[in-house]
Amino acid sequence: MAFFFKSREIRKGKMLDFNFRNPTNILFGRGKIATINEHISPGSRVLILYGGGSVRANGTLAQATAALAGYTLFEFSGIEPNPSYETLMKAVELVQDESIDFLLAVGGGSVIDGTKFVAAAALFEGEPWSILLDRGASIERALPMGTVLTLPATGSEMNRGAVVTRRALQAKLVFHSSHVFPQFSVLDPEKTYSLPLKQISNGVVDAYVHVMEQYLTYPVNAMVQDRFAEGLLLTLLEVGPRALADPEDYDLRANLMWSATMGLNGLIGAGVPQDWATHMIGHELTAAHGLDHAQTLAIILPSLLTVCQEDKWAKLLQYAERVWGLKGGGEETRIEAAIALTRKFFEQMRIKTHLSDYGIGEESIPRLLQQLETHGMVALGERQSVTLDVSKKILEMSL
Amino acid sequence: MAFFFKSREIRKGKMLDFNFRNPTNILFGRGKIATINEHISPGSRVLILYGGGSVRANGTLAQATAALAGYTLFEFSGIEPNPSYETLMKAVELVQDESIDFLLAVGGGSVIDGTKFVAAAALFEGEPWSILLDRGASIERALPMGTVLTLPATGSEMNRGAVVTRRALQAKLVFHSSHVFPQFSVLDPEKTYSLPLKQISNGVVDAYVHVMEQYLTYPVNAMVQDRFAEGLLLTLLEVGPRALADPEDYDLRANLMWSATMGLNGLIGAGVPQDWATHMIGHELTAAHGLDHAQTLAIILPSLLTVCQEDKWAKLLQYAERVWGLKGGGEETRIEAAIALTRKFFEQMRIKTHLSDYGIGEESIPRLLQQLETHGMVALGERQSVTLDVSKKILEMSL
Repeated sequence: MAFFFKSREIRKGKMLDFNFRNPTNILFGRGKIATINEHISPGSRVLILYGGGSVRANGTLAQATAALAGYTLFEFSGIEPNPSYETLMKAVELVQDESIDFLLAVGGGSVIDGTKFVAAAALFEGEPWSILLDRGASIERALPMGTVLTLPATGSEMNRGAVVTRRALQAKLVFHSSHVFPQFSVLDPEKTYSLPLKQISNGVVDAYVHVMEQYLTYPVNAMVQDRFAEGLLLTLLEVGPRALADPEDYDLRANLMWSATMGLNGLIGAGVPQDWATHMIGHELTAAHGLDHAQTLAIILPSLLTVCQEDKWAKLLQYAERVWGLKGGGEETRIEAAIALTRKFFEQMRIKTHLSDYGIGEESIPRLLQQLETHGMVALGERQSVTLDVSKKILEMSL
Repeated sequence: MAFFFKSREIRKGKMLDFNFRNPTNILFGRGKIATINEHISPGSRVLILYGGGSVRANGTLAQATAALAGYTLFEFSGIEPNPSYETLMKAVELVQDESIDFLLAVGGGSVIDGTKFVAAAALFEGEPWSILLDRGASIERALPMGTVLTLPATGSEMNRGAVVTRRALQAKLVFHSSHVFPQFSVLDPEKTYSLPLKQISNGVVDAYVHVMEQYLTYPVNAMVQDRFAEGLLLTLLEVGPRALADPEDYDLRANLMWSATMGLNGLIGAGVPQDWATHMIGHELTAAHGLDHAQTLAIILPSLLTVCQEDKWAKLLQYAERVWGLKGGGEETRIEAAIALTRKFFEQMRIKTHLSDYGIGEESIPRLLQQLETHGMVALGERQSVTLDVSKKILEMSL
């Protein structure tokens, strides 16, 4: 297979072919929520979906409702972090009972992901769980939807992917479909001022790892994608800690928000190999132990880069130089330093990076590996070389 | 007005609000032309528009025709560089006579720009020249269109703008409309192998200046946009000269192509002030003296950066450091060096950078200024500070 070649060799590879399309209309800036009515057909029956009470408490929900005077409005609340199939199916029922024809997600990645599932499931023929089992392939249509983003992190506001958890099965699964691109997304940086700092920490780490999953593989001479990815990493390094220190600095929040959206809207991943092993192993940690998504990424990524360094050698050197400014010394030293600095950045963002920090010990590893196997995650990474044995090493190094 | 402040002050400005949407589907890679039928409604009457005979000679036209077996096809050839209103109106007539319902542009920026005009003019009520006079504001619909790009340069394949020249009036005018986004664009780097090197020179300089028009203004703390712009400039500096030396290196042409598209698809310009004075002055040079578009940009930009350096001080320093690696010495010295290196790069790309190189002397300046005035170009640039007096200085410095 073309992807296998001597690991440390710098492959004079060709940029991979790709199709890229992203039709989401981004409405970026202060007060943009007041303009959403320009983007929803008049007379629509609109269901507003959200999570806990924070969007009600901070006025965002009222602003959305005010912007939609003249529409017939419905509400569905209680979409949880790592949105569950069980909860979302209640929303699907409401959509069908009330003949809803537009969905408005108000919240962060979980609410938006959940709304994408509702959009597809409401028009799906057959058992909606199969949407997750075939990763979206069977989706032929979806209700139109828009979003008001309150938490910069996942990029879901401008992409075609979503993650849904089925608690009964301890399964956290991903699906993709062009039918669930939001038609518009409001990105108002001021909406993030009132977020708990823990969510900013999670958001920065999540966005950083999204970029790394698409960047830190092997080189195919995709210069634009590499420069863009490095630009996002540098921006997150610059604004992340400052956004914790100064929560009402507009520019910091604006740059954080735009970085997170650009980090996972398909652009930097077009034409390059992608990894995603950190995410897949991390999903099992969340499903089994309830860790925040970003916590799992902060734990797994440094170990994965260490275990898989031979496969990622050339790109690790590029990362060390362009993102961390490391030029001198031997190659091993630079790579080790870049991985250590990555871990240090996560810790600086106040996210612990070892399983033991969360009370998870060696005895949990067999169960996690079993779940990876159950979900078919037996050949992960850009070379499909992260077998269960490699995942075991990564988890052991993460203790 | 908020844009005016003490020139050398580094404004702690806020990122500007913006809406960003770009629905064009990019089909990137070898042989993608064979897939265009997947993106045009079955049974369509398709008009293929192109320029001279090169797309016929090199087989691209035949590939497009082969991909569209089963459609009713028409052809319109002869769209010239700097496409003329006079020529395009003949295509409009053909579209109306033959009830065409899809336009396929096969060529470079001129063919694509011209096709955008035809798409809008064919459905326009009233005199189509008014599309240019109000810069596209009156466009309410357009025929759907797609493109097969053969020349990386203008970015027209993934944006909503076009430039049309009316020879009888010596007028070269721009219009924009969301209705003329191509539905798809094929970017196959191998299609550029047979281009005359002069067109690669022009394309690289055109793309470079597009990025500069959106980047080299004043800082508003738009970190992502700045990093992306710098990434494109660095890529063009790296691949431009090598693409002249080695015309059949796939990776060089792929990176050049993607840089040019990304340079003017709305992304790096979202939320930042923009200049475009170089383009507006350059358009008058083309209209009056027939210079290639890129030649006019290579002449005007270095002079404009010199004349307007006080207004652009902070960004010129950033450009000097991040793109050219200039850190030591006084600020004036770094800025002067960065502008000199920019000029040197254009010359290295084999584009002359003085009016005298093209036989244009001081006596031409009054006429050029008169045309700028006629076209309302009396307060250009990101601060509207490029008055006719400033344009005069820029032209004099370009002799």
